[in-house]
Parts: sequence; structure tokens; C-alpha cells
Amino acid sequence: MHVARAFSCHLSLADMSHQMSFKELMKVLGLGAVALVLGVEWLNWLMRRLRDSRGPLKEVLFFPSPQVCVEHLFIRHKHFPCACPLPHGIETSFSRLLVHLLSARMSLDLCVFSFSHMELSRAILLLHKRGVVVRVVTDRDYMTITGSQIGALRKAGICVRHEMSSAVHMHHKFALVDGRKLITGSLNWTLTAVQSNKENIMVTEEPELMGPYQQEFQKLWEANDPANHKPQCTNGQLNIKTCKDR
Amino acid sequence: MHVARAFSCHLSLADMSHQMSFKELMKVLGLGAVALVLGVEWLNWLMRRLRDSRGPLKEVLFFPSPQVCVEHLFIRHKHFPCACPLPHGIETSFSRLLVHLLSARMSLDLCVFSFSHMELSRAILLLHKRGVVVRVVTDRDYMTITGSQIGALRKAGICVRHEMSSAVHMHHKFALVDGRKLITGSLNWTLTAVQSNKENIMVTEEPELMGPYQQEFQKLWEANDPANHKPQCTNGQLNIKTCKDR
Repeated sequence: MHVARAFSCHLSLADMSHQMSFKELMKVLGLGAVALVLGVEWLNWLMRRLRDSRGPLKEVLFFPSPQVCVEHLFIRHKHFPCACPLPHGIETSFSRLLVHLLSARMSLDLCVFSFSHMELSRAILLLHKRGVVVRVVTDRDYMTITGSQIGALRKAGICVRHEMSSAVHMHHKFALVDGRKLITGSLNWTLTAVQSNKENIMVTEEPELMGPYQQEFQKLWEANDPANHKPQCTNGQLNIKTCKDR
Repeated sequence: MHVARAFSCHLSLADMSHQMSFKELMKVLGLGAVALVLGVEWLNWLMRRLRDSRGPLKEVLFFPSPQVCVEHLFIRHKHFPCACPLPHGIETSFSRLLVHLLSARMSLDLCVFSFSHMELSRAILLLHKRGVVVRVVTDRDYMTITGSQIGALRKAGICVRHEMSSAVHMHHKFALVDGRKLITGSLNWTLTAVQSNKENIMVTEEPELMGPYQQEFQKLWEANDPANHKPQCTNGQLNIKTCKDR
């Protein structure tokens, strides 16, 4: 029955295309395309309305996070699963963190005490490559420890500023995605923190929470502008020369 | 004019009390007291409605916090200012943190990596003395470092559990006040963190954020129950003997 119906449908479509002129066919196809675009837009609007009715995004992630493959988050249209031996297709706290970071389209402001996690570094470098404006404020002492990714970010041309005072630690661990989404918690950007420690992260688009963190970032960014301080190390000079400061 | 009016008013009140019987006077005073209580209740209701219309509490605090006198937060009805040389009557991030902690009436669940701040320890001991049920989960290594206040809490009979694994750090820094208010951020409970470092704390009563932290606390509390682990140190045994575990 189904085969017969499908065949007759195919026949009638074929007949139609024979009967219709090329101009008419283009008209139908054009109208179809417009209807498709409108439909997608309407679905988008509906999804936004549904999301708005639940209030701004609020998500809490706890660590340690099990080690799974996150390759599909970095390489778009990659065939799944990839060849690596890690478990595939599993969502973890770490993969959620990556998803939120990689959702940046315009800007990423990052304030982090310790940054040695290779995959988080890969995510930041990828955002920079995609044209996202990345600004990083970090700790003076911890940016030079073994395994720190701060040098790699600077080499790629990402603007990094560090706490200027040697008596103070820049102990924040927060990120601001597109000036809209706040990611904050106890998690330093290290492998131990992600895979071993008991840690937490909160992701929110609540403007009353996001706003103060954005102001704090801007305050730290301006306070640690190397142009306002005497040059103390090569890193400071490199920072001025290579990155496009805002 | 004003003096004359006040005088005549005083006279008429005196006349009234002369003319009114004792019973009538008591009636007026009783009604006045009822009106006052109702008025205060109504004001309270109005304040609650106004607060609710702004949504659940959301407050962000940044550190370092300047050193000011916080004595009035510990001793109720104390004459102000006290005799100490610190600045008085100034609200800071640290005083706001103390206000939120000392607002606990029923319970305080605390998950903190490093705890050596004397005034925060004093606040926790005061809550315990007031009958608030305090539970603490902390890090195994950091609870024994010089200046740690964990021993003082245990001596006072407060229930403290520590991360049982030696390979893992309990790196959270959050508190739950009366199962309703969440205090979380990058701030460890040390003097350096409060007075020197760049740190953040968020205080919120948003149920979607509070809920997951409450679950995480309960999970850690149960996972680190010394009754389920072989005794490894005196602290663990002391914990079982002295505090009333929930």
C-alpha cells in the first residue's frame, strides 16, 4: 500500500513538473523557500518565548567531571564518533562549560587565577581565531608557573593583562560571554580542578548578577593597563605591542 | 506660636486624663498598642511585597574589603561606636558577608577549602551558641595548616567532616543559610582573601541556584561520613563523639 501510494505521489509530482512551465516551477520553489525561512524564524521566536518564560538562564555545574571525548565541540561537521579511546556522546560538567565558552560570538572577558588546562586553552584560541574579541586578566605569579597557557594565548595575539601588584593575588575565576552570560565559581582552569577536585561553576544570564561582574572586569582591565605602569617584564611589553587593546 | 500651641495641647491632654476614668485610659492605651502592632505588621507585609516584586535576593560582593569595625554585628544592643581604633559605621563587602551569615536562625551548611579567618570563625561559633545547627565540610590537608579554625569549631562541638580522599581537594567555598540563602564565590575564609586578594562572592535566594548547591552539600556530607570510613585520625573520632550529627 505505502509503496503504491509513494509511487503514485512520485508520478503525480513528475506529471506536475511536466505540466508546469519553468517560470511556474521557479515561483513554487521560491515560495517554498520563503515559507521555510519564515517557518524557521517562527520556530526560533517560539523557542525564545519559551526560554524567556522560564526566566534568564541559570545552570549549576559540579566537578570533578569524568573524562569524555569533546572533539565534536571543537570541529564542526566532524563525523561522530571520532577515533579516540575516550567515551563518546556523553554530556559532562566539563563539556557543558566548553559549550558555554564556545557559544561566544562577539567577546569573551576572562578573569582567571590559574590557567593550565590544554582543552580550555584550545577553546580560547579557537574563539580568537573565529574573530571573537578575547581579553584575559590573570594572576602575576601563577601566569608563569609550569604548564601555564597564558604564554600560548599571548603568542597568538590575545590581550592578556596581569595583576600589577606582587603583594596581591588575582583570585577570581569568572568569564563573561558576549557581555551577556556569566560563568563563575571555584574552578581554576587546571586539569586537577576539572578532573579531581570538588568544584562548582554557575552559568547565568541574570542581568543583576552579570552586571557587577562586567563592571569588576572593566575595573581590573583598566587598573592593570601596562601603559599606566612602569615596564617590569618582557611580557608586559609584548602585551602592548601584539594585541589590539580595547 | 509653636510654644503656645504645644502648651495648650499639653494642657488639653492633661485635662483629658483628669476627665477620663482609669478604665477609659487603659482602653485608649490598649487600643493604641493594638494599632501600633497592626501598623508594624502591615509595614512588614508591605516591605515583603516590595522585596518579592523585585524577585529573590541577588547581591554581588567584591574583595579586598577595607578593614572597619564590625563589633556591632556580633554584640546586640552594644553602644555605638565601640572603643577600637578602626573606622566605624561603614558598610563593606566583609560586613555584608557577616550580616548574611549572622542572619541564620535555623541552620548553616558550610563547604570551605581554607578557613583561618578569626572573625568568620567567631561568627560561626556565635551561631552555634545561639542554637543554629552548623555543619562544615572542609579540605583534608588545609584543615590542619597553621591558623586553621577547624579545630576551634570542633572543640566547640560543631560537626565538621573533611574530604576523605587524600588525592582530592575539597575546593568549594559556599555557605547555605537556613536552606534558603546561597553564598558562593572565589573567596576562601582567610585574612589574605578578605583583605588583600581580588575575590568575589554572590549572595542569592534564587531557588534554581540554591537547590543544586544544597544537594551537593548533602552529597558531600554523606560521602564523608566518618562512620562509613575506617578511622584514620583522632579528628575523625572526635567528630563522631562530640557533635550531634544530622
